[in-house]
Amino acid sequence: MTRFADYQNSFPNARLTRSQSGVLEVTLHSDGGVLVFDGHTHEQFVDLFHAIGSDPENRVVILTGSGAAFIEQISPDGFDFFSPRGYDKIYREGKKVLMNILDIEAPMITALNGPVRLHSEYALLTDIILATPETVFQDKPHFDFGIVPGDGVNLLWPEVIGSIRGRYFLLTRQELDAETARQWGVVNEIVPAERLLARAHEIAEGIAALPPLTSRYTRIALTQKLRRIVDEGIGYGLALEGVSAADVARASAANG
Amino acid sequence: MTRFADYQNSFPNARLTRSQSGVLEVTLHSDGGVLVFDGHTHEQFVDLFHAIGSDPENRVVILTGSGAAFIEQISPDGFDFFSPRGYDKIYREGKKVLMNILDIEAPMITALNGPVRLHSEYALLTDIILATPETVFQDKPHFDFGIVPGDGVNLLWPEVIGSIRGRYFLLTRQELDAETARQWGVVNEIVPAERLLARAHEIAEGIAALPPLTSRYTRIALTQKLRRIVDEGIGYGLALEGVSAADVARASAANG
Amino acid sequence: MTRFADYQNSFPNARLTRSQSGVLEVTLHSDGGVLVFDGHTHEQFVDLFHAIGSDPENRVVILTGSGAAFIEQISPDGFDFFSPRGYDKIYREGKKVLMNILDIEAPMITALNGPVRLHSEYALLTDIILATPETVFQDKPHFDFGIVPGDGVNLLWPEVIGSIRGRYFLLTRQELDAETARQWGVVNEIVPAERLLARAHEIAEGIAALPPLTSRYTRIALTQKLRRIVDEGIGYGLALEGVSAADVARASAANG
Amino acid sequence: MTRFADYQNSFPNARLTRSQSGVLEVTLHSDGGVLVFDGHTHEQFVDLFHAIGSDPENRVVILTGSGAAFIEQISPDGFDFFSPRGYDKIYREGKKVLMNILDIEAPMITALNGPVRLHSEYALLTDIILATPETVFQDKPHFDFGIVPGDGVNLLWPEVIGSIRGRYFLLTRQELDAETARQWGVVNEIVPAERLLARAHEIAEGIAALPPLTSRYTRIALTQKLRRIVDEGIGYGLALEGVSAADVARASAANG
Amino acid sequence: MTRFADYQNSFPNARLTRSQSGVLEVTLHSDGGVLVFDGHTHEQFVDLFHAIGSDPENRVVILTGSGAAFIEQISPDGFDFFSPRGYDKIYREGKKVLMNILDIEAPMITALNGPVRLHSEYALLTDIILATPETVFQDKPHFDFGIVPGDGVNLLWPEVIGSIRGRYFLLTRQELDAETARQWGVVNEIVPAERLLARAHEIAEGIAALPPLTSRYTRIALTQKLRRIVDEGIGYGLALEGVSAADVARASAANG
Amino acid sequence: MTRFADYQNSFPNARLTRSQSGVLEVTLHSDGGVLVFDGHTHEQFVDLFHAIGSDPENRVVILTGSGAAFIEQISPDGFDFFSPRGYDKIYREGKKVLMNILDIEAPMITALNGPVRLHSEYALLTDIILATPETVFQDKPHFDFGIVPGDGVNLLWPEVIGSIRGRYFLLTRQELDAETARQWGVVNEIVPAERLLARAHEIAEGIAALPPLTSRYTRIALTQKLRRIVDEGIGYGLALEGVSAADVARASAANG
Repeated sequence: MTRFADYQNSFPNARLTRSQSGVLEVTLHSDGGVLVFDGHTHEQFVDLFHAIGSDPENRVVILTGSGAAFIEQISPDGFDFFSPRGYDKIYREGKKVLMNILDIEAPMITALNGPVRLHSEYALLTDIILATPETVFQDKPHFDFGIVPGDGVNLLWPEVIGSIRGRYFLLTRQELDAETARQWGVVNEIVPAERLLARAHEIAEGIAALPPLTSRYTRIALTQKLRRIVDEGIGYGLALEGVSAADVARASAANG
Repeated sequence: MTRFADYQNSFPNARLTRSQSGVLEVTLHSDGGVLVFDGHTHEQFVDLFHAIGSDPENRVVILTGSGAAFIEQISPDGFDFFSPRGYDKIYREGKKVLMNILDIEAPMITALNGPVRLHSEYALLTDIILATPETVFQDKPHFDFGIVPGDGVNLLWPEVIGSIRGRYFLLTRQELDAETARQWGVVNEIVPAERLLARAHEIAEGIAALPPLTSRYTRIALTQKLRRIVDEGIGYGLALEGVSAADVARASAANG
Repeated sequence: MTRFADYQNSFPNARLTRSQSGVLEVTLHSDGGVLVFDGHTHEQFVDLFHAIGSDPENRVVILTGSGAAFIEQISPDGFDFFSPRGYDKIYREGKKVLMNILDIEAPMITALNGPVRLHSEYALLTDIILATPETVFQDKPHFDFGIVPGDGVNLLWPEVIGSIRGRYFLLTRQELDAETARQWGVVNEIVPAERLLARAHEIAEGIAALPPLTSRYTRIALTQKLRRIVDEGIGYGLALEGVSAADVARASAANG
Repeated sequence: MTRFADYQNSFPNARLTRSQSGVLEVTLHSDGGVLVFDGHTHEQFVDLFHAIGSDPENRVVILTGSGAAFIEQISPDGFDFFSPRGYDKIYREGKKVLMNILDIEAPMITALNGPVRLHSEYALLTDIILATPETVFQDKPHFDFGIVPGDGVNLLWPEVIGSIRGRYFLLTRQELDAETARQWGVVNEIVPAERLLARAHEIAEGIAALPPLTSRYTRIALTQKLRRIVDEGIGYGLALEGVSAADVARASAANG
Repeated sequence: MTRFADYQNSFPNARLTRSQSGVLEVTLHSDGGVLVFDGHTHEQFVDLFHAIGSDPENRVVILTGSGAAFIEQISPDGFDFFSPRGYDKIYREGKKVLMNILDIEAPMITALNGPVRLHSEYALLTDIILATPETVFQDKPHFDFGIVPGDGVNLLWPEVIGSIRGRYFLLTRQELDAETARQWGVVNEIVPAERLLARAHEIAEGIAALPPLTSRYTRIALTQKLRRIVDEGIGYGLALEGVSAADVARASAANG
Repeated sequence: MTRFADYQNSFPNARLTRSQSGVLEVTLHSDGGVLVFDGHTHEQFVDLFHAIGSDPENRVVILTGSGAAFIEQISPDGFDFFSPRGYDKIYREGKKVLMNILDIEAPMITALNGPVRLHSEYALLTDIILATPETVFQDKPHFDFGIVPGDGVNLLWPEVIGSIRGRYFLLTRQELDAETARQWGVVNEIVPAERLLARAHEIAEGIAALPPLTSRYTRIALTQKLRRIVDEGIGYGLALEGVSAADVARASAANG
């Protein structure tokens, strides 16, 4: 069994604090500011969610970002998308990170402090989503790089907003504002930025007041379908993304 | 093959009448007034839905309540949630009641005459839902008792209103008014109380005018997915609810 | 591998044109005007979608209709619903046509030029749906003929608009206008008739600009769930529809 | 909750006795001799298995036959295979009877006292199969009548003996002797006729000695996969069987 | 609807003859001798099985080979395994060929005239397998080329011979002789070479004597599970095979 | 990414050595002798398999035991089966340990050095099983303690040896000798004890000679079905086991 002190300070891009009642706040960041997502955070977050899920003292988890965005910038640092063995690392981590989020048995709340333009599927695997009015959703880098959005957004957006809406969202790189997202069932509440975390903690403390087995088993009972969707589809989607990346690399080499 | 006369008067908490065209109206009640749900009705409704499903003369089924609520009050009478063998009865009945509703091959209409604060999943398994403006939806007793909402609401709410909305609804004990429920796809029509049953019968007679195999096989074709969802998930959800109840009992005994 | 010239002119009820960039426009029609759907088109469209799916040069597919409706009229010509061997042809073709649409790996856009009163499931299997303000959706002929709507509408409407809405839509022969359809997630954009195709091509060219494996594998990654739904349910739904048709035939013969 | 006395003598073709320890012996028969299977037993067995499953006092169930065969003879009495409404009754009962067997939570043992030439799927849904040396397995009447073997044998034989063996068994009307059946995993033990029931009771008493929730929940844990197989496939198989019967009837009428 | 004359002579590597009763014999060959499997046959067989499945006059299908082997030799001609776009063709055809075999609704018999060292999954999708004493099974070229055996053998061998046996068979390139294959349930009958086709036709004529809907719907009822297994797993397996091929190509280029 | 040195010496009950070619040998033991399985090893093995799966340098994994048995003895030390919160730890670990084995992407070989009387499902999740002539299989402690065998043996034994054999094996606490296990497809090879590990390494080196992505992706392609079986069923089985344990505890307290 993992203890909080063992992992609290292990993650350079995630600040962890936990209340007396077991509400864990996880703030993604780069040097305290907006997170820059790169190959190192991709690997790090696999372990981050694994650690959180291994500690039964976490009663509720709040996931949030730093600065003006939740996840918006991507850097190629630490990524090798364009060789099979380089991509293999992304494939392995990409499968694990989603299952590790689902293996967190504590109910989860995402407090979106701003735009989410990549890895929006992290939020969709949590149970409750609060967003500021400035929040927008988009899946941008995949098509910008010319590769398949196969890392789970392909599975979860159609599941959450509906089949036709979800496919349009990804194929057209649609930008979804917070109010539309609320109407389409992605966002539960829109909360001004200055009250966002307070509201997340208010909900979290309500859940943390339940008996411990009850809150955890409720998340299990509510996420069985998502486990199936992810387990069945994530490997295939990532493999297709990998083949498309290999093709882009080859075309680029041929043109270079 | 079961005949109407054999079971029409067998259920103290359900008044059954049937039109010439085969439209069965089922009114849940306690002594003619608002239903008080207890361990006896839990057992009784297993047999009620089994009887309805065993009678091919039922062409359409209308399910409604009495007085100011559909199902709002719960009484501990006849329930033993807190010992494994006591809970076993709830587990057995809880699995059966949902499959028995799905085994009714006649199209089903729920006419919600007021609030539904427990066993809202009964309505979600029917094909059409009408509600009065006063109707509200909530899942209340599970968390009030400190136990997992694992009796099917965990499966059906995310299915009907979407994954993020459904999980929020249960985790926060949200109260959903009729108009929001209509916008979210739970309610097909909001109808004033005095016209509720008339409208239900109007729709029912339209369906009852179809050839008998056609209406029944249409419900079968429309509910295959729900059978799968329920059959795959209901036992596990109820088992988790049972473990949480055993834990509550133990904590309560320790504190007592 | 199939080439465009081999099949471009093979389909009397579908006019095919393809842009330099590989955007295939498929216009369903009868003699250049509104399509009259009959047993011959039922058979022809199986081959049409198979041909489209066999040609990897198709980068994006736009499906549209002619005149004032997408598919509204049905003619009994070429259909034999009412004998088992006659129905067997419908059953075989009905299974194949949907899987053939899903076997098209190019992203698909439906541009609805007016009402869809039968085989609306074709559109629901495409990824993006544009509609004119005059478009309405309905499933009409099945119940008009007294038979089960088991050809896929039973599977796809509840999937796209939600379980309760989808069952109501079919059981009441509801007519859904374009704006409601947009709010319920069936339609992505409402576009005036005169701009409909231009807008479809605008979106299509955006997708066609992606690397070829990327656009195709994205559609594959986005439609895995639909393949499962169709493959698991379509044969059973059509078989139930066939039994109901045999019963209607028998009742009609007995009354005749 | 059902009590033994309520149903013990309700079934003309099943003799029920129960030991002190809760081992229920169910002997299928016609007038005390070999069972003649007909439309009346088809209906009766739906209720028989439902009653057994509704009584938690049944700790283990032994299913056996009378005289020289388990189920070998079929009579057309009470069956109407050849009209859609007649077949509808068979379809409804056929779906229910298998699910009712699976709804029996007590571990089940089949003691095969001789040949099984129809409804062998009943035995395959029980947990343990003992057979006499004279026992043979075959699926005979379906193809003799010219109809699809779609009542569950199509699902369960490939599951139990393997895909290629199971398909050959049905397509060639293969007769499987007891020893081959044992080698192929259908039969657990071959026991001389005079010791058959004694051995069944010996095993049953061993299981009945377990705590009651334990033995029942073990059967549940062991049969989840079978529930899925049956629930997903039985309706479709029976519908195909029904269409084939309608075709046979029509061909026969045309030739008659 | 396709007619025999339209496709009988369309396939250079498959000789097709059909009996009066509708038994189609399909003999795979290269210039009349043992088939040499290459990229051209890979593409051709997609169309071959599609044509067979589109012709309802085929009542039973017998699949066999020429000369001393069923499929034993592979030639690189027409294959481009080692670039993403080259592999894309293999991926598309590989998915289609298995679904096209399953789309053949006529019962299928494989008459193995000798060793099968690649694409053994074709046989496993047929319903009955006869083999000569000289027949052996092996999956050889995948590991010889250093790539993943992901074209369906990974799905079907564990299904047919068991999970542990199937995984060992592929991982160790095990050679399975006819008698072991018979004991493990892959082969139904071992027949001397000179009687092989006669025995296949004897069984085929027995099945062809059933009413036409009955034999076809029986194959449908017997292969639903295989459709699911193939549809769910084939694309992913082939994508993994493709990534492994891209890696082999790259390593080879680096070493070359 | 985890490195071997980081975890090689972290597990008191597992000795880890790795060859140059990446063949990892994992020997389960207690103080160098036969493993005594207890609550501490239950927790430790979750981490053990997680560590192995996180290290891509492991090319093939051999799992074996020490002394005269693989896993035969169980000690109550560190286990609290009989309170809900105590059982919760077992439930969490029990779910994780099986998924962690399946998350090992390297092909796995179990070398059974003697009897396996508990947690035999570990071996069934590996790809190849070698056994000494002295090896026997049994599931003993569950029924000895009076609780449901719900930790995965319920899912995997029927999958590997067949439905009827697997249910009999568990319900009768059958002891399966090595030769019968080989005939039933559980064991691939029976090897004398002194040659057991040599043979395991011989097979392992053959697999380790494949390109690294190829061997790993082959295991992925071969175990998709097992992931589904485990992910869908393990939580429910363990929850039922937990309820049965709570009942045993209560009955025991009442009798004490």
